[in-house]
Formats: sequence, structure tokens, C-alpha cells
Amino acid sequence: MKAIAVYEDGDEPVLMEKPRPEPSGGEALIRTLRVGVDGTDHEVIAGEHGGTPEGEDHIVLGHEAIGVVEDPNDTPFEVGDLVVPTVRRPPNGANEYFARGEPDMAPSGRYHERGIEGDHGFMSEYFTSPAEYLVPVPRELVELGFLVEPASIAEKAIEHTVASRSAFHWEPESAVVLGNGSLGLLTLAILGDTFDRRYCLGRRDRPDPTIDVIESLGATYINSNETPVSGIPAAYEAVDFVFEATGHAPHAFECIEALAPNGAAALLGVPGDWTFEIDGGKLHRELVLHNKALVGSVNSGYDHFEAAVESLSRLPRGYLDDLVTGVYPVEEFEAAFVDDDTTIKTAVEFGRYEER
Amino acid sequence: MKAIAVYEDGDEPVLMEKPRPEPSGGEALIRTLRVGVDGTDHEVIAGEHGGTPEGEDHIVLGHEAIGVVEDPNDTPFEVGDLVVPTVRRPPNGANEYFARGEPDMAPSGRYHERGIEGDHGFMSEYFTSPAEYLVPVPRELVELGFLVEPASIAEKAIEHTVASRSAFHWEPESAVVLGNGSLGLLTLAILGDTFDRRYCLGRRDRPDPTIDVIESLGATYINSNETPVSGIPAAYEAVDFVFEATGHAPHAFECIEALAPNGAAALLGVPGDWTFEIDGGKLHRELVLHNKALVGSVNSGYDHFEAAVESLSRLPRGYLDDLVTGVYPVEEFEAAFVDDDTTIKTAVEFGRYEER
Repeated sequence: MKAIAVYEDGDEPVLMEKPRPEPSGGEALIRTLRVGVDGTDHEVIAGEHGGTPEGEDHIVLGHEAIGVVEDPNDTPFEVGDLVVPTVRRPPNGANEYFARGEPDMAPSGRYHERGIEGDHGFMSEYFTSPAEYLVPVPRELVELGFLVEPASIAEKAIEHTVASRSAFHWEPESAVVLGNGSLGLLTLAILGDTFDRRYCLGRRDRPDPTIDVIESLGATYINSNETPVSGIPAAYEAVDFVFEATGHAPHAFECIEALAPNGAAALLGVPGDWTFEIDGGKLHRELVLHNKALVGSVNSGYDHFEAAVESLSRLPRGYLDDLVTGVYPVEEFEAAFVDDDTTIKTAVEFGRYEER
Repeated sequence: MKAIAVYEDGDEPVLMEKPRPEPSGGEALIRTLRVGVDGTDHEVIAGEHGGTPEGEDHIVLGHEAIGVVEDPNDTPFEVGDLVVPTVRRPPNGANEYFARGEPDMAPSGRYHERGIEGDHGFMSEYFTSPAEYLVPVPRELVELGFLVEPASIAEKAIEHTVASRSAFHWEPESAVVLGNGSLGLLTLAILGDTFDRRYCLGRRDRPDPTIDVIESLGATYINSNETPVSGIPAAYEAVDFVFEATGHAPHAFECIEALAPNGAAALLGVPGDWTFEIDGGKLHRELVLHNKALVGSVNSGYDHFEAAVESLSRLPRGYLDDLVTGVYPVEEFEAAFVDDDTTIKTAVEFGRYEER
């Protein structure tokens, strides 16, 4: 079968032939439909993040997949069921984080990540997975199901950050998403359920496709070249919630100044080392005197995938379609890895769903 | 009656005569027993924090009081009841934060703080208070009831920080308190209910009375001259919980490195502006990849005072006695404001409780 992988010593994705996998006991065989591409894939390709499975010289890419059950193999699934696989797997059988359904809370060394670190991903015509890591998806999400995994990342970060405000009465009204990449734009839509006023900060000038989709939601675009994060309260309003999806390290600290009293920020970026100056006294004081919080969040659990399926089913279909700027057949996979100013979200298509 | 106040243009506490207050409807008249002194009092005296009530040239100090009801004045209290007053008051009648029992969540401008900002404190022979801001205290805490207010500050910070971990299964085992002042030492004792292993960081060398009381709890003293906050994991262990009570701004950021995966830090210090360098990329990444959180916390609500009464009733009496290094009669009040290496916690005594 065809698979898209990166070699340990390579710096670009390549198409290769691999044997079709056989499901073990408890595993189903899945025929892959579409697999999304995101920033983590680019980091894996560049060798900045993750690593190949033990004893192998390459890793099959892809952690944002939707597929159809080809062989249930005595699992509770039926042939033709649409499923999205979760990403983390226990490296040596189970451990307590996976047993609790919280693989996202496992520390380093207690998980592999399919397509990222230590385990092959889903960018192949078929993959196998234990049934407990497959999330059912309704028929109407067949084309957009590869957005479930990134949406689950947002669901977890929102859940954890809202939990940080659960010891008091919190009625948030305004939110800013830092970052107009696909995760930021997906989150901006999800936040519409909770927040009356939404902002999204990016560094692009008009005309730009992401600004168009932001405004199509009724949200306000903030150009970071004109308004720095710390200037948001003066230029717009102090916000109750910040969702940082830029990976630009100063944002993790500047966002304290963008928050209204009792507000909280979800941090999702994964920057490299970078030393810079902050007014740490002012930021520390601001966190304390106004009961603010910063909540880091990585990955997601099964429940977050389920929440993501629900959210995506509710969101305006036109908006989601606008986010997807390219779906390429496997033979043209290179196009899915191009990331320019016209790209929001891309996917590689391995096959089509056929009604039975 | 005697009162201890600081003039707007003064820089030291002075003893003055003031008329004994008359309770209005809904208020009780309280005869003051003891009032504790803390760092905030020193900041108010130095003019670094707070301010006098409108139209007055002085503010009566003191926000950590215990007293006895002298005149219930048709409130539900009885003569002789022991009470601790809460600190925040609504500036113009009620507002929604006070109505919800969450004055600690009110933003600037929506509260006064007795003895700190905009309202006279409790360092006088008598004070009045609406009954809803008086917390009943059992007889056995008559001598240590002035510790209820600082303990309530710890209770709130712990509650909010634990809430930030409520979206997943969290079984914390280890905690470090940054700061061996009276708030830090009180918190270290309270944390004994939850944490198997406790550490307390200070910058004093042995012999030191705070190190003795830390070790009397079975906790470990960490000398910050030998082990910086970021070095705690290497020298001791990465901890699940940090309680920052130093006001030393770098600690608010260095503590991210002291936390174990999925850990959280409560921040309580209120430093002045201070610009310094951090490896913001590393800290941001660490927050995200290990699901860590920073939770700022200020002041406390009525429920936290009640929790503090319960905690203090449970704690070893000998430990609390060791924290109190001086209780001075009102005529010797200056001694209560001396803060040297032998001082942990001091109070001014305005009167004695008499059994009826």
C-alpha cells in the first residue's frame, strides 16, 4: 500500500510502498480516507520534534485522520463505520494514564504519538488501531473528519482553562485567539458557543483569506503589526479568555496584560528556547491582584475527540469548508505540504467513502 | 478609644484617640482582642500600597483581627461571641461580587479593604461591622484567631489552584512553599492535610527560628542561597504544587521549572515593576508540553475564612504557638511592627477575653 513518510535523515515527505497491516486481537483494520497536515508534521519533517519508531529508519506521517472500518476483526465496530483515531499510544502495553482515558496527561516517556514520535502515523492507505482508540464519526463529517483531531486539542485546552475558573462564578463574554493558523481559526468558531465577542490576532495584512473567514464569523481581526497583544485592552477590550496558538513565546507572557480581571489564558504553542526581557514584576503582580491564570495544554483524550465531533457537527459548514484550502490525492501529496499565504488547512486524500 | 493608625504623610504607625464607633442597623459592635501584623501593613505604612478613607488624613491599620461581640445590636450574634471580620467592603452599598460572597473576585474600584485601602482597619479597641462580614470562631482559637485572615488567603489560593487541576485525575503528593514568612509557614502546615512531602524555601542560613518550625512539621527546608527555585527538581524532586509567597517576581516564572508534569503553582506575591530576562521559550514550552498552570490569587471570601477556622482548629497547637513570636499590649505597639530575623508573626493585644 502507499504511505507517506519521512526518513530519519531526510527533510521532506516521501511516498513509499509498505505492506498492508494485519489487525491483531482487539484491533480493527481501517481504510484511510483523508489525513490533515499541520505544523507538527512540518516539525517532524524538519527533525525538530518527535522521532521514528524503535528500530526503523522512517516514520509514516499523519495524526489527523478519518477512515472507514474495513475489517472490524471482532471489535464492536461494523464494516463501513466512520472513525477518527486518537494519537497517543502506551509504549509498553497499558499504563494508568491510558487506563483512565487521559493519555494527554501522560508525561514524557509514557506515550508514543502516532505519526509524531515512536509510532507510525495514519498517512497510508490502511492502518490498524485498537478499537478503544477509535472515535465514531457521523456520516455528515466524512469529508471534514480530519478536523476532529485538531478540534479535540482546542476542546481540551478550553476545558482545562475553564476548569481553572470553576472555584468562583465566572461569566466570560470576550475571547481572543492568538494565531490565525488552522487551529486558531477552528477554535475561534468553537468559542462562538460561549463568547459573545471574539477576536483573532494574526500578523498578516489585508487582503488575506484568514481575515475573510474571521470576519465571516462576526469576529474581529487584530493585526499584530498594529496592535501588540499587550495593547489589546486599550485598542479593543480586556478579554476574559485568551487562546494562544502562535507558539510565539512572548505571547505566553504578554497575554497576561490582555486579560480582564479573573480571566485565564490557554497556552498551546511549543516554541524553542528563547531568552528575552519581560517586566516580570508587573506581570506577576497582575496575575495575583486580578486572579488571573495561565494554563498549558497539550494533546487530547478520548472525551475531547467526542466533544470535537459534536462541535464540528454544530459549526457552520460553509466556515469549515472555507478553512480547507486544499485536499490532494496521494499522488499529489507534496502540494498538501506547501504552506504559503493562501494556505489555511490541507489534507491528503487516500480514498473515498462509498455508500453501501 | 485607643487606635493605631498611619497618617497619609506619615511613615510610621502612631497611637491616637478616636471616638468609640456606634453600630448602624445590621452592624454589631465588636471589642477587639488581638490584631496581627503582616507585610501588607508595612506596605501601607510605607505608602507603597492602599490609601486613607475618603476625606480623612489617616487610616486605622489592621486587617487580621479577632474580637468579641460587645453589642449584637439586633444581629444574629450574642454578647460574648468570638468573631473574625472579613476585610473587603463594597464601596457604595452592595455589588454583585459581594452579593455572591466573592468579594475577593471584585476588580479594582469595586471594593475597599479595611485597614488597607479606603476604610479604617481593626487596630482600635472597638470596631463595628455588618454581621454578614463576621465569621464565628470557636473558643479554643481565642488567642490565635488573628491567624484566621492570613490562613483564609492560603485556603483561597489552594482552592483555586486545585480547581485548575479538576478536569483530570490529579493525585498530588509533593508541595513546595516559596517563602518562610508567616503566610508561607502557615500554609506549609495547612498543606499537611493533602501532601505527603512538603518543602519550604527561604533565604536564611541556620540557625534560624523559621527553619526549626519547618522541620518540626517534618518538612524540608530549602536554602535558596544553595538551591535556586529552578534547581529544586535536581536537588530534591519536581513538585506537584508550588505556593509562591515571596513576592520575588522571578519566582513566579522559575517555579514552572520546579513543577512536575501536570503540576500547578499558586502565586500570591505582589511585587513592584521589575524587568529581567527569562528563557521564555523554554518556560512556555514547559507549561504546554507538561500541562502546567500558574494561578494568581488575592484576598479571600467568607467561605475561605470558614475553611481557615477549620484548618486552624485541626493544626498542631504547638506549631501555631511557635509561629507567634510576639503579642504586645497596645501601649507597646511599636514592638509588633519590628520585623527582624527573630520575628515570624506578631500581634497587638487590645483586650482579653473574659469568660461569662
